[in-house]
Amino acid sequence: MLFHVRMDVAVPHDLDADVRAELVATEKARALELQRAGTWVHLWRVVGQYSNISVFDVADATEMHDLLWSLPLFPYMQVQVTALTEHPSALSAQR
Amino acid sequence: MLFHVRMDVAVPHDLDADVRAELVATEKARALELQRAGTWVHLWRVVGQYSNISVFDVADATEMHDLLWSLPLFPYMQVQVTALTEHPSALSAQR
Amino acid sequence: MLFHVRMDVAVPHDLDADVRAELVATEKARALELQRAGTWVHLWRVVGQYSNISVFDVADATEMHDLLWSLPLFPYMQVQVTALTEHPSALSAQR
Amino acid sequence: MLFHVRMDVAVPHDLDADVRAELVATEKARALELQRAGTWVHLWRVVGQYSNISVFDVADATEMHDLLWSLPLFPYMQVQVTALTEHPSALSAQR
Amino acid sequence: MLFHVRMDVAVPHDLDADVRAELVATEKARALELQRAGTWVHLWRVVGQYSNISVFDVADATEMHDLLWSLPLFPYMQVQVTALTEHPSALSAQR
Amino acid sequence: MLFHVRMDVAVPHDLDADVRAELVATEKARALELQRAGTWVHLWRVVGQYSNISVFDVADATEMHDLLWSLPLFPYMQVQVTALTEHPSALSAQR
Amino acid sequence: MLFHVRMDVAVPHDLDADVRAELVATEKARALELQRAGTWVHLWRVVGQYSNISVFDVADATEMHDLLWSLPLFPYMQVQVTALTEHPSALSAQR
Amino acid sequence: MLFHVRMDVAVPHDLDADVRAELVATEKARALELQRAGTWVHLWRVVGQYSNISVFDVADATEMHDLLWSLPLFPYMQVQVTALTEHPSALSAQR
Amino acid sequence: MLFHVRMDVAVPHDLDADVRAELVATEKARALELQRAGTWVHLWRVVGQYSNISVFDVADATEMHDLLWSLPLFPYMQVQVTALTEHPSALSAQR
Amino acid sequence: MLFHVRMDVAVPHDLDADVRAELVATEKARALELQRAGTWVHLWRVVGQYSNISVFDVADATEMHDLLWSLPLFPYMQVQVTALTEHPSALSAQR
Repeated sequence: MLFHVRMDVAVPHDLDADVRAELVATEKARALELQRAGTWVHLWRVVGQYSNISVFDVADATEMHDLLWSLPLFPYMQVQVTALTEHPSALSAQR
Repeated sequence: MLFHVRMDVAVPHDLDADVRAELVATEKARALELQRAGTWVHLWRVVGQYSNISVFDVADATEMHDLLWSLPLFPYMQVQVTALTEHPSALSAQR
Repeated sequence: MLFHVRMDVAVPHDLDADVRAELVATEKARALELQRAGTWVHLWRVVGQYSNISVFDVADATEMHDLLWSLPLFPYMQVQVTALTEHPSALSAQR
Repeated sequence: MLFHVRMDVAVPHDLDADVRAELVATEKARALELQRAGTWVHLWRVVGQYSNISVFDVADATEMHDLLWSLPLFPYMQVQVTALTEHPSALSAQR
Repeated sequence: MLFHVRMDVAVPHDLDADVRAELVATEKARALELQRAGTWVHLWRVVGQYSNISVFDVADATEMHDLLWSLPLFPYMQVQVTALTEHPSALSAQR
Repeated sequence: MLFHVRMDVAVPHDLDADVRAELVATEKARALELQRAGTWVHLWRVVGQYSNISVFDVADATEMHDLLWSLPLFPYMQVQVTALTEHPSALSAQR
Repeated sequence: MLFHVRMDVAVPHDLDADVRAELVATEKARALELQRAGTWVHLWRVVGQYSNISVFDVADATEMHDLLWSLPLFPYMQVQVTALTEHPSALSAQR
Repeated sequence: MLFHVRMDVAVPHDLDADVRAELVATEKARALELQRAGTWVHLWRVVGQYSNISVFDVADATEMHDLLWSLPLFPYMQVQVTALTEHPSALSAQR
Repeated sequence: MLFHVRMDVAVPHDLDADVRAELVATEKARALELQRAGTWVHLWRVVGQYSNISVFDVADATEMHDLLWSLPLFPYMQVQVTALTEHPSALSAQR
Repeated sequence: MLFHVRMDVAVPHDLDADVRAELVATEKARALELQRAGTWVHLWRVVGQYSNISVFDVADATEMHDLLWSLPLFPYMQVQVTALTEHPSALSAQR
């Protein structure tokens, strides 16, 4: 099933620069891994924000939560989760 | 370029049933046409809402505005438009 | 999977009394049917509001959406949907 | 009587790791104890949030307050309390 | 137990004047009755608003809900309900 | 005249424990003194919050401000002040 | 005592033009009368809004409420009332 | 002096089509006239909204208010007015 | 021209007491100076808040901005600025 | 294409004064450079705020994002981005 997620990142200004760099690098590696696995289906940057809008394809809500909870930057994010379903006007629904 | 759009529809309760049905049918036809043209790239239903979350691929902001403005249900929608760009952690950015 | 839903009802004051009574009766019948089926797991009244807080157990987001969309009072509700998962401190998680 | 409670936890990033671990463990022990006692009736995790949605069955508002106030993580929570009552369309009300 | 309630009234401008006068008179009679019964403990007008702030002393949440739901002006009110308990610095708590 | 006041307290987590205890004790002593003087007419705890809802009977707005400003916990409070007057449906107004 | 009041006016579009003109004229006459009496101390227009910001000098909260409640446009206003007192840095406080 | 103004238009759905067309045409004529006069300095459409963002160069706040108040669509607009001044990093300030 | 300004002050709890006292004293001196000059026309305390509501009479928006920006407490304030103009029902407008 | 951007700056009070001065100077140099290049088309100060309202003319959303992301004060800003298009009542649209 699909979840739409917006993540707004706010890393504290006084976080150690090395810790921060390590966090960002680990986050990126995890994002690439999940995209390659077909779980993190879309990942876009919001213009002018330290934010992304993403779509995930997961088995259920538990997989969605565990995935987000384990992101390296999770403690520094505001996260909004919205459940999606097929739109009746989507091409995929014209069967 | 990509725009993320959320549309929340609120058709007045007292709108004539035929007018309403015609509006909804015309809106669907337009949505299908724009999806086939590759402009309306994603179209999802928000669970539990008369709302969709969409992504459009347009030449520029003017095309985006004209497209939204001309939707049959536009007068009955609240629309939120967010400009997107490639995320540095997206697979497509790993070149 | 579980969804937490809050429904705030606002039937227009000028709706015909018979139509309204019919809507409310049909809504109640549907709520009872879904509770008996084990789908509408919890249904509570919010004190002092024409609102309920509910928990649904559905196969997926599509079933959740279709259920809400087809409620007789849906056109007169504000609906908030929140995906739930097992809490690590819940008794059910102590295995 | 029943109260619906949402707790959003925000432990400061600079809290000592041992203090934090102790707090979380004590909170969990208390949650289990109250669930076993039949007071903390439901405890769900909100997907993608360090938050729970709970339902408590207590004698009165004073018991509800004292319970929440004495939770180990209370100083780090935003808490929303909503009084519930039986819904006229609930199965339990069809007598 | 005590509930703090704020009621903001918005009677539609096009309501028939006689219906409105009848509603207001019935509401007042009911308020007086409940005050004499010791249930509606406090009733104040908010300066500059068609609103009141009230405190009710009821057996439980169900009595609170039924009382509010049955007020003649309930369909035209926004209602906020807040559960109260004894404050540890109140005179009544110094035993 | 009467003022309705809600105070939401947020003492910083890193405040010295002795300073905090002293503040809380002084605040309580002041609250008791003002209740005995008939100025702080009502003082309730909001369930699940480090907050109170109070009603004050003061000579004028200046007395109200000076009282609040001089509370020991004032620097750590969010305060909402609402002027009250007699409600036309209050028992006291039926003369 | 002084109250700061902001009034935002929203007369319904379908109000009869004569009724509207009468309301506006009566409101203006009342505003002038109260200014001449020294009660409505300041009356400013907010730029670009059908709104005013005013300061009233009244005996107490009851006079303030009765004055606002009896304004001809009151049923069509959103009103915000803020109690004022002398500022310690005001010239008038340097005695 | 310069004012930044955002206007969000919401013409009622049931307004007579001819009245609406006349309003829109008159509004456009007025906008062109004020642009030619050098008063309405910038006029942009917000993408996806029946809204504009404008900058006006007027003698003072009174001219700004009278201009907005007399716009044909003013009764159907939400208007936000923000006073501007020269930015110290603007080219025009590098003298 | 007139500007209505609300200033909400929040000096950090850990600011050095001497620095704070100096800031407050300098702010007061500046406020008195500007009142004597006829620029800071009104200065009121909001009851129960570390806030003021003020009206300034300045030549233009630039003078308004420079005045606010140079206030000693400016870095610790939230400031809301509203442009005012003469109200058509004000006594001063009856010429 | 044009973007409307509002930037609200909040540099932490405890940032080293030299670091801050360097940041502000670098920001100003960058703003001047981008104005001279014709990219940062308008830059205004919001009266009474550490904020600016700007209009940028960029090739696409990616250029807009990279520009904002690389501003020296970006980590200390709240940024709101709004896509603009030509207004049908703008002089430039009368062809």
